Parts: sequence; C-alpha cells; structure tokens
Amino acid sequence: MSFDDLSRDQIQALFDEQTAAYRALQERGLKLDLTRGKPSPEQLDLSNELLSLPGADFKDASGTDTRNYGGLTGLLELREIFAPIMRVPTSQVVAGDNASLAMMHDNLVFALFHGVPDSEQPWGVEESVKFVCPAPGYDRHFALLEEYGIEMVTVPMNADGPDVDAVREAVKDPAVKGMWLVPTYSNPTGAVISEAVAAELAALETAAPDFRIFWDNAYAVHHLTDQQTKTPDILGLCVASGHPNRPVIFASTSKITFAGAGVSFLGSSPDNIAWYLSHLGKRTIGPDKVNQLRHARYLGSTEGVHALMERHRAILAPKFETVVTILRDRLAEYGIADWTEPAGGYFVSLDVLDGTASRVVELTREAGVAMTPAGAAFPYGEDPRDRNIRIAPSFPSPDDLATAIDVLATSVLIAAAEQYLA
Amino acid sequence: MSFDDLSRDQIQALFDEQTAAYRALQERGLKLDLTRGKPSPEQLDLSNELLSLPGADFKDASGTDTRNYGGLTGLLELREIFAPIMRVPTSQVVAGDNASLAMMHDNLVFALFHGVPDSEQPWGVEESVKFVCPAPGYDRHFALLEEYGIEMVTVPMNADGPDVDAVREAVKDPAVKGMWLVPTYSNPTGAVISEAVAAELAALETAAPDFRIFWDNAYAVHHLTDQQTKTPDILGLCVASGHPNRPVIFASTSKITFAGAGVSFLGSSPDNIAWYLSHLGKRTIGPDKVNQLRHARYLGSTEGVHALMERHRAILAPKFETVVTILRDRLAEYGIADWTEPAGGYFVSLDVLDGTASRVVELTREAGVAMTPAGAAFPYGEDPRDRNIRIAPSFPSPDDLATAIDVLATSVLIAAAEQYLA
Repeated sequence: MSFDDLSRDQIQALFDEQTAAYRALQERGLKLDLTRGKPSPEQLDLSNELLSLPGADFKDASGTDTRNYGGLTGLLELREIFAPIMRVPTSQVVAGDNASLAMMHDNLVFALFHGVPDSEQPWGVEESVKFVCPAPGYDRHFALLEEYGIEMVTVPMNADGPDVDAVREAVKDPAVKGMWLVPTYSNPTGAVISEAVAAELAALETAAPDFRIFWDNAYAVHHLTDQQTKTPDILGLCVASGHPNRPVIFASTSKITFAGAGVSFLGSSPDNIAWYLSHLGKRTIGPDKVNQLRHARYLGSTEGVHALMERHRAILAPKFETVVTILRDRLAEYGIADWTEPAGGYFVSLDVLDGTASRVVELTREAGVAMTPAGAAFPYGEDPRDRNIRIAPSFPSPDDLATAIDVLATSVLIAAAEQYLA
Repeated sequence: MSFDDLSRDQIQALFDEQTAAYRALQERGLKLDLTRGKPSPEQLDLSNELLSLPGADFKDASGTDTRNYGGLTGLLELREIFAPIMRVPTSQVVAGDNASLAMMHDNLVFALFHGVPDSEQPWGVEESVKFVCPAPGYDRHFALLEEYGIEMVTVPMNADGPDVDAVREAVKDPAVKGMWLVPTYSNPTGAVISEAVAAELAALETAAPDFRIFWDNAYAVHHLTDQQTKTPDILGLCVASGHPNRPVIFASTSKITFAGAGVSFLGSSPDNIAWYLSHLGKRTIGPDKVNQLRHARYLGSTEGVHALMERHRAILAPKFETVVTILRDRLAEYGIADWTEPAGGYFVSLDVLDGTASRVVELTREAGVAMTPAGAAFPYGEDPRDRNIRIAPSFPSPDDLATAIDVLATSVLIAAAEQYLA
C-alpha cells in the first residue's frame, strides 16, 4: 500500500486521525532535542575515570613533563593507539586538542594562505576555489567552506560512497582543490565507502595538482552491529596510485571519551604533516599534553578503544533500534518515507515525501521536538528535493527518544497528507 | 671605569683571563637552556592538584555537563575569576583552550578573511596590511605577522611603554591596522606601560578606522616585588576616547597553572566578542570545558590567583636576583652592558656592546648554554644594533642558572674585548 493507493477520503481520514494524535502530543508540553550527535550522559559516564587522571604521575612514556610547553606533534603513546585505527604510521599522526573540526579549519586556512605541498600558489590567490561535497553530508563541513568562500560542488552520496562518476567530472575543473568525505558510517546516511570506490578516488586524475581528500573518519570505530566494518586504507591506496599527498585523515575521541574534552588526530603523508606542523607551530607551542596523557592512560591500547566502543554500542544500538522500529511501524505501510538502518555512526537519515521536509521539521518543533533544520545536510542548506531529515538518536533517554520519534512520524504523515490534499 | 678607560694591554689581559675562565667552563660539558620563558618543575608542582581534578563532579555552577559539546564562550565561573585581572566585564570575556597565542592567530586570520567590526573590507584584500611592533618585543608575535604577510613597523619600546610619537606617526598610514603590546612586564624588557601612555594610545587618531591594539597581558599578575603593578584599564580608556572596539585583550594561565595545559582568555568590546565568536563557532563547537572546570575549582577566585602568584614569586624572585647580581658583579665595572631589573614577568633584557650580541650567543652556545638567538626580540629577527639578548631565568635550577649566567657574563666580556682588540 502507498498513498497513491488511497482515496482522497482515506487520506483525509488519516490526516484527521494523525492531527488528533499530534494535538495530544502537543499537549504534553514536550521539550526534546534530536538535533545534534551528542553522546548521552550514560555514554560519557563510561569515561569518568578521565576526571581524576593522570593523577600524580605527569610524565609521559619518554619522561617528558606533560605540564610544560612543547611537543607540537602530541604524545607518542596516544598517537600509537590511534595510528592503526586511522591506518597511518604513527610517525605521520599528529594529536591535537579537543576538536578535529579545528584541524580541518586550520588545514583550509593554511592552504588558502600558503598553498599545500604540490600547490603552485596559495589557494587564496586563485580566482576561485571549489570543494566536492557528497550530499547528504555534514553541515559543519559545508559551513567551513562557506566561511572561507570556497564554492561547493554537490555530488550524490551513495550507499558505497560518493558517486565516482560525478566526482570524476567535477575534478576536471582545476579550481576543484579538494573534497569532503566521511568514509565510514557517514553523516548522516551511515554509508560506508567500499574499497573499490576508495581506490577510484585515490587514483582519480584531477586537474588540480594539489587536490586533497579531507577524509573525516569521525566514526571509524563506532559500530552498531557485530560487523566491525574496516575503513579502506586511503593513505595506502593514494600512495599506490602515485598521489601520496592526496588524503588528509581526521579522527577524534569526541564520541569515544568526552565530546567536549577529547583529543583530535590528523594523519597524512610525511610532506603534508611537515607542512601542517610548520604552520601550526606559529599558532601554538603545543597541544594540551596532560589531556593526551590522561587519554593514553585511560584507553591503554587500540584494543582498549575497541572495548570501550563495545560499551557505547550497548547503549546506542537499542536507541537506533527504537528509531527504526517506530518509523517502520508508523510509516512503512504508506510508502511515503525511506530511512537508513545504519551499521554504525550517529545518525538515521530520513527521506520523507518530496517537498515536505521543511514542513515536517516545523510540525515537530511546534510539538516541542527540535530537529536539525531541513536541508542542513546539503551545501548551502538547500535540499533540492526538500525531503531529507537527519535524526540524532544518541542524546535523549530511551523514553524521550521514543516519544520524539513518535512526534516525528506523526508529523511526516500529516505533512504528506497535507500535500496530497492541497 | 669602562672599556674606554682601559689600555689595549689591559683589555688583552682581560681577554686572556676571561678566555681561560671560558675554557674551564667549556670543560664542564654544560647543557643549560635560557631560551624560553618556561616555568620550572617546582612552579608547575604548585598546581598539581589539577592533575586529579575535577573528580566525580563534572557539572559547572550552572549545572552544565562539562564533558559534552558546546559552550563556545567558556565556563562562566572561570571567566568571572579572570575578568577583574583583564579589567573587562565578565560578559565580554571568552575562555578558550591552552594557548592565547592561538587566539591571537585566529583574530588575525578572521580579520584577514572577513575584516573586523569597523572594517570597510577584509584586511586580506587591502594592498598591504601593517602592524606597529614595539621592539624589543615578543618573537612569537612577530612570527605570526610574518606567517600572514603582515608588514612590521618597528617603534621603540621605552620604560613606560611604546614611544607614542613614533606610534602616532606610524598610524597615519591607513595600511597600519594594529599594534602589538605586552603592557605589563613586557617581553623582554619588563617595561610597564604608564596610564598616560595607555591613554594616549587609546585616544590616537588613526588613518585606519579599524585599528586594533593586541594587548597581550601575559604577565598581568606575575609580580616579582611587593609592588603589585596594575595594568591600565585599556578597555575603559578606549571607550572613553570613542574607540570602544580598539583593544583586544589576551591573557592565559600558562604561567599561572600549567604552561601546556592551561586556559586562555580573550576580552574586548561586545561587538568584537560577537564577531570573534561568530567565526570561532565555525572552527569549533566549544573549548575544553572540563579543563576550565578544573581551573575554576583549583583557583577558586581572583584572590586565589593572586595567592598562587605569590608562591610563584617565592620561587622566581631569587632567580632574577641571581641573574642581576652576577651581571652586576661581573660586568658593571666595565660599562659595556646594561640590563633590566624587572619588577615582574619572565625575562631580563641584556644589552651588550653594539655589534656583539650574535657573538655572545655563539660563545655561550659553544660552552653549552643555549640562549634565544640574538635579534629574536626584533621584527624579522634583526636587531639593528646587534646588542640585545633575552635571558629567561625561570626554568633552570638555581645552581644551573648561576652557572649559565656566569658563562653569559664571560662571553659578554670576551666578545667586547674581541671587538676592542680587532
């Protein structure tokens, strides 16, 4: 069955029924928030040991006093823990402060002012600079480009990664200097890039000699199932294709330990790392090494990270199950919506009836449920079909989440019925 | 007596004597470092309580979970502690991560890309951008300008602040968009800006409508004597002069708590703060609030900061005394050197015989004592008289410090004698 199989009267009846349900939900005076991929307090509690670390011993494994200045590259023992996750040699990993977004920002700024290795001139003196943006994607990535006047070229994000043909076409333009990519459990669709797509991106001939893939592996180890998807080795693939400086790999502990007080990581070629450090060293004398020591002591090893992620999964997987179950129960029969059932990451991506996403978000808001604005997952905030809504199930309690998704499903039905009846 | 009163033979005898002393020092195989204003381990020990804070209670005074994302402005209770030190209302103070240098960097980057409030266009699209640099000054300030192609206009740094007439002349050029200033216990001379000079800088007519004073109050509370010098209220002075957006005030706990794991602060006008946050919010979701909570709990209050600084003073003041005493004992009689006797801050500034500073640093290095390169305190690393050497007495142990200054004084005498004998 789908809306197309229903008569106008049946749709009107559904609208009336859902509107009554909506009013009842409205009367509950809800104040719920599905906007951001924030860990819940229960998830943060998993890492509370950090709150009293490192304790009396403030020296790292090499005997360096972490309290003092210096150490631009970050603590070796923490870089060792994350290098295998990033699939980059430890010597090519930099550990930073609490935000990998900041590392991405700084890479853009340094490139605009100075160019990157392989650049003929600073990006900022080019007539225009463009980035390929698989969409739906991460709104903060797009906001960074807008901040610095970098034009966005949208390509479709498929289940196995970006549409390579579209990327291949885009990079014929020498103004296209890079692309964004969340390779594993992408934000928001949960797509995982295949080895084949990764290899094609690594090998692509690009008009710009200094083309970069900003490989934001924010959810590298954030599995929701037993299937521990491994992110392709983009650095190795690029080296093999003769483009060793192409990938710039980002990661962080924001959704492993504390979202606001974690550690960020950058991995890349030796040339790119030397370039990054040479500019970073003007901005700071070094990262917060005490916090890095705290993390190295608490996580212990790469295996320690995976073990911690299992505990996150135990909290998160049932929440994703709740979202998918309610959407299925409430919406499947009408054929007016599709949603992802991701094997990892932080989001469910919901596609509603074309032209109704904005209305759905308006309806949920008026019932006390904040959603990310419709279109947020697209460059310039413009979803050409006005259909995509990002659901972030992590933060609310299970009960609140169920209520919020109920509001959402009700709103989806109302908006669809409104459109059919208009 | 001075070198001018000595015969060639007497200078030769002094040279021989000092060279013998130097050889003896060389044989000790020293490895000492006077390059950087790093706190000593004993100073860092004062704040070891931070190493196990905040402990189980991770909520700030408003009940916010500091572990999670958000809070771009930083923790209110920590901003309250530092607002009186910065002489800025708490609502106009932002608390950041571990490096105020990074805040300075980001202010420059945002200004170059977007302009500041009062700008007609982004600084970066102007034909040239210049900054006034009182010298001797802080080498990392100058390095930031070089990194972004901002031209440096040197003005003399006097005992009561920068030479106002020279600044007044410089700011007639509309390309001059700002100036650096370490107002209290300046790096490296220890100069403290007077109320009168501060008022003149606040009132200056500048050709650029968007002229900024980068007021880096790194040593606001870092007294070495009973005289608790108070930094002029630059924000109030600028407001009174009709230039409310002129000052951008920086501070940090780098030399209060942990040099590498402290908190930085920015204070300015409401317009400038809103501007800064609007751009910062693209770079990061928020600072490390757990570290800010740690600091708020440990420091407790503005008075707590001052009490901690007394304990630093007890460690630092004898070191400065050692430096000044040895320089006086070894050099005063020859009239070939001058040095500051600062009432606060982290440096002694030594002026040796014109044309010999580079040679002195070479000699100390060859005897195992690393000094900041001669000229480092000047724009482009060029001391026009090749006479200034920055001494950072804080890090070495008292014995090592005495030995290092002995090497330095010996080197000063040898270099001066070499010049006279050449």
